[in-house]
Amino acid sequence: MQNELTKQLGITYPLIQAPMAGGVTTTKLVAAVSSCGGLGMIGAGYLTPFQMREQIKQIQKATTKPFGVNLFVPSSIRTSEEEVREANQFLKPYLEKYNLQPETKPLLPTELAWEQFEQQLKVIVEEKVPICSFTFELPTDEQISLLKEHDVLLIGTATNVKEAMLSEQKGMDMVVVQGTEAGGHRGSFMDDSKSLIGLMSLIPQVVDRVQIPVIAAGGIMDGRGMSASLCLGAKGVQMGTAFLTCKESGAPEIHKKAILQALDDATVLTRSFSGKWARGLNNVFIEEMKAYEDQLPDFPIQNILTKQLRQVAAKENNMDFMSLWSGQSPLLAKDQSVGELISRTIAETKAIMHLK
Amino acid sequence: MQNELTKQLGITYPLIQAPMAGGVTTTKLVAAVSSCGGLGMIGAGYLTPFQMREQIKQIQKATTKPFGVNLFVPSSIRTSEEEVREANQFLKPYLEKYNLQPETKPLLPTELAWEQFEQQLKVIVEEKVPICSFTFELPTDEQISLLKEHDVLLIGTATNVKEAMLSEQKGMDMVVVQGTEAGGHRGSFMDDSKSLIGLMSLIPQVVDRVQIPVIAAGGIMDGRGMSASLCLGAKGVQMGTAFLTCKESGAPEIHKKAILQALDDATVLTRSFSGKWARGLNNVFIEEMKAYEDQLPDFPIQNILTKQLRQVAAKENNMDFMSLWSGQSPLLAKDQSVGELISRTIAETKAIMHLK
Repeated sequence: MQNELTKQLGITYPLIQAPMAGGVTTTKLVAAVSSCGGLGMIGAGYLTPFQMREQIKQIQKATTKPFGVNLFVPSSIRTSEEEVREANQFLKPYLEKYNLQPETKPLLPTELAWEQFEQQLKVIVEEKVPICSFTFELPTDEQISLLKEHDVLLIGTATNVKEAMLSEQKGMDMVVVQGTEAGGHRGSFMDDSKSLIGLMSLIPQVVDRVQIPVIAAGGIMDGRGMSASLCLGAKGVQMGTAFLTCKESGAPEIHKKAILQALDDATVLTRSFSGKWARGLNNVFIEEMKAYEDQLPDFPIQNILTKQLRQVAAKENNMDFMSLWSGQSPLLAKDQSVGELISRTIAETKAIMHLK
Repeated sequence: MQNELTKQLGITYPLIQAPMAGGVTTTKLVAAVSSCGGLGMIGAGYLTPFQMREQIKQIQKATTKPFGVNLFVPSSIRTSEEEVREANQFLKPYLEKYNLQPETKPLLPTELAWEQFEQQLKVIVEEKVPICSFTFELPTDEQISLLKEHDVLLIGTATNVKEAMLSEQKGMDMVVVQGTEAGGHRGSFMDDSKSLIGLMSLIPQVVDRVQIPVIAAGGIMDGRGMSASLCLGAKGVQMGTAFLTCKESGAPEIHKKAILQALDDATVLTRSFSGKWARGLNNVFIEEMKAYEDQLPDFPIQNILTKQLRQVAAKENNMDFMSLWSGQSPLLAKDQSVGELISRTIAETKAIMHLK
């Protein structure tokens, strides 16, 4: 199954583990994926530069194979203290339920966010991480140049043709195209609208318009999804939910269980948890916050405001207030090891595509 | 490319032309598709039993190959005169623009709709149409029995696993699974929510849970989409937008042109035209009516209220008020003949799947 993508990434199979931020991508998970011939990815969006460096070192000890890091590129945040007050008012009943105090100063200055991001990039370079992917925006031209000088392979994230073309133009070496099927945050970064194109449409339209390798993401859980993506013109796949329910993932057990028991139409799009559109299993919080959804502050403000609530809910195994991110294929999820998932997926793909 | 689906349908290639109602599926289009080895389908949802019979006879003269008819199964309509008054109020600026009188009596009684549907079924039997597909609901057990006694092969339409399983259980011989990518009306018929699952997720989850052949629909425009659908477990594909822009289709030229010039993210879901969720190219009417979208009467009431407006807009080549149905892959649309579309799609599929 070697192709230009596996050669550039230095991996055996064109199968990437999606960089799920928020504790899912443990060292165990990332190292297992890379050891099994795929590409493990640290979802470092919420990690400090220090935490990131620690995990990179741990993974380097656990495997000699390449792995990557995903970063959230900051964008300028438009919000106000009044918007925050209002959002806290919406959250009041939930915070009170758990005796939590509202977060009144979530206004991370844009400059600080950029400084943090610069430091993350520095860690990538210093620790010689070979692959770095980006979500929510593209880095600046200077940042891209710096990474390229240090031979870091760069991967963008796009949800439509326009975003994929800009990713190529700005110098990304590959691009992940995220179908509407994908769980977690939407990677849309042009226009305000959420681009919700299914992979059956998205892959061939992007492939026709960019030269760089395209990686398909969204709802892919087995060899059927992998072979279909290759037929549509992708050079590889990125799988999230399929790895989230694996034994090595750091997702709360109750989150894994919820996915394993969910039906195909159990997911919805919401911005109530973080201020950015994301796909997860529907629950009480999403339903009840729907009425205020358009008035909530942007990411990461809303994410900071709901953080304590999500944490205490996870601690108490209360699914009503957890962000249970999931793609649209929960019926294909399995309780399995990373090794089982990868070997089965590759064997199925080869069988379907009649490959040796 | 023979399989159980082509054998049951008596066709050469597992490629079905979607039954697009409202004038697209001309006799020329349906006959050309069947003559070229696919399955042509009349979109008879808006045809009277008399019109339907006429077209069936014409197609029987034009080709000896099998073709099918798609019917809208009526459902009980909940609406009120007040709701209609209100909806006409929303439409007032548009109707006045064209000097049109509001339709004040669109309240088609449910019994009359069922009587019409019974008569359509009678035509299917009398004219010996071999294949009949259904959208928006499933027929009653009695209707299904009657059609089966006359050896009519029955195809249901589903947008999630639950609907596909019910279709099988009720006696459908095959089921079309409609991904979120699909243009035109959503075929959802259980729960009120619009089930918007991408084909990458929908096909394998349905295939794992039904025994009957699954037909994939939504965003499929070429051999890449066809081979991907087969990899995912579908036994065949149904293509709509790809046939809509063909020379033989009856869609207004301006509608074809709009699709041929549209980008991948040009479509939106709306219920402003018909009262039922449908996917089409975004335009002035959809944008401006968005504010009232949740208050509009159900299908077919809203469809009747907007009928004159859509007709006059089409006549005047004014895209602002036309329902420009399209799937999510407009960049793959071509101005071509049915023969070119089918032969290219089959050749590509064979090449990708390494078939002889």
